[in-house]
Amino acid sequence: MSFIAALRQRWQQADTLVCVGLDPEPARFPARFADDADAVFAFCRDIVDATAEYACAFKPQIAHFAALGAEHALTRLIAHIHAAHPGIPVILDSKRGDIGSTAQHYAAEAFDRYRADAVTVNPYLGRDSVQPFLDRADKGVIVLCRTSNPGAGDLQDLLVHGRPLYQQVAQKVAHEWNAHGNCALVVGATWPEQLREVRGIAGDLPFLVPGVGAQGGDVEAVVRNARTADGTGLIVSSSRAILYASSGDDFADAAREAARALRETINRYR
Amino acid sequence: MSFIAALRQRWQQADTLVCVGLDPEPARFPARFADDADAVFAFCRDIVDATAEYACAFKPQIAHFAALGAEHALTRLIAHIHAAHPGIPVILDSKRGDIGSTAQHYAAEAFDRYRADAVTVNPYLGRDSVQPFLDRADKGVIVLCRTSNPGAGDLQDLLVHGRPLYQQVAQKVAHEWNAHGNCALVVGATWPEQLREVRGIAGDLPFLVPGVGAQGGDVEAVVRNARTADGTGLIVSSSRAILYASSGDDFADAAREAARALRETINRYR
Repeated sequence: MSFIAALRQRWQQADTLVCVGLDPEPARFPARFADDADAVFAFCRDIVDATAEYACAFKPQIAHFAALGAEHALTRLIAHIHAAHPGIPVILDSKRGDIGSTAQHYAAEAFDRYRADAVTVNPYLGRDSVQPFLDRADKGVIVLCRTSNPGAGDLQDLLVHGRPLYQQVAQKVAHEWNAHGNCALVVGATWPEQLREVRGIAGDLPFLVPGVGAQGGDVEAVVRNARTADGTGLIVSSSRAILYASSGDDFADAAREAARALRETINRYR
Repeated sequence: MSFIAALRQRWQQADTLVCVGLDPEPARFPARFADDADAVFAFCRDIVDATAEYACAFKPQIAHFAALGAEHALTRLIAHIHAAHPGIPVILDSKRGDIGSTAQHYAAEAFDRYRADAVTVNPYLGRDSVQPFLDRADKGVIVLCRTSNPGAGDLQDLLVHGRPLYQQVAQKVAHEWNAHGNCALVVGATWPEQLREVRGIAGDLPFLVPGVGAQGGDVEAVVRNARTADGTGLIVSSSRAILYASSGDDFADAAREAARALRETINRYR
């Protein structure tokens, strides 16, 4: 099943738009992992198993693994998700972007090496840099549009023919790059007005929405401004607010409760 | 010594603007590496040792290692360059870009894990996404400006207040982001006119120029349009045309000759 089909099925069957972001930071792990040489994998696995019921997707952020030299833990984590929680797609959050011949290697990294179902990519290098990802029709290609960070507007808000750059990106992705129907957009929760504008351009394209929780995005505004007509269309990602909901031995229960509560809050406004 | 200082010293002392790109593709390795489990490291090491005399920098492209799961080979390769060829800086070509908290992990990946002297980054997420790299004042931060691929113009050429986006990026990097004097720009060799325009904006900022050789950039036009007043300012990168100059047992000699010839061609027009 393709990423987009799996996502839509999961939205319906599990009645959730919550994406659990997996950003391991060993300094924030509960004390029980202090002497565990396999802590990165073990912590993330416990979070995955505790939150799976409420997850429409899992999103490992690759920098957190790469800085630790924990590629093997990432490989095993994604294999665990596929084996223990089939039907929940995995988004590798790597924001890659390079010329076509190199982009093929990044596509191999995401889809063949790590077996992710979707990947985040950066559009700055243009369509041919994204094409090796787009060509994998069963995989999801989630293109950065309007990101959630304070400096997002430095480039993304620059006006091109009277419209901000991020809207130009939304237009290209939705109406030029989506020939295989496997595209989605990253639009940060910290910018509800922009979410509304991008929804107006992008039709029913799924949005990956980071920035609720630790970054302060308003869930109600996100859902009201960006849901599709059927009350889906969103992959609302929370990482730190779920992962580090408790630093005690109850971390898994606390993560589960944080994911459940986020689902409930989202569903109130769908 | 900082990256920029090491680069300037190398330009002068070795009289070369050639950067040797390290993009290992095992299918293109000479037959002697066919049964070598350590082929990625061994091939790149042989190329490095053969071409060092003519190199102002080495540039490993991380996707080529990541697709193969060859992180350990990359670590050892950079350690080998530092040990065997001190004074030649290493640019990790990874084109990272993410929100600030994640960018810190990418900076740790490049500078602490791999011990690179400089890294390529993508500006689409804005200044705060680049700040964790900029804060490492001794390290080089090489920002994508106008890339060498055919689709580069899809975003980079869009007009903002009458000037293409890549010129806005050049302006920001040269005049806002370069507070520590550690910035450089990526400007592709395939666009000599753009090189001239960016030089006019960016003063003496070093340019990393990919796209000569396999991608067809014209060396004379690159050098004439983009050198600084002292005849330097350029890191002219060639990867495939050097690495795969011969597929026979003479691959190292052929790589050395390709690097030497590129230096000579460049120096003719400085």
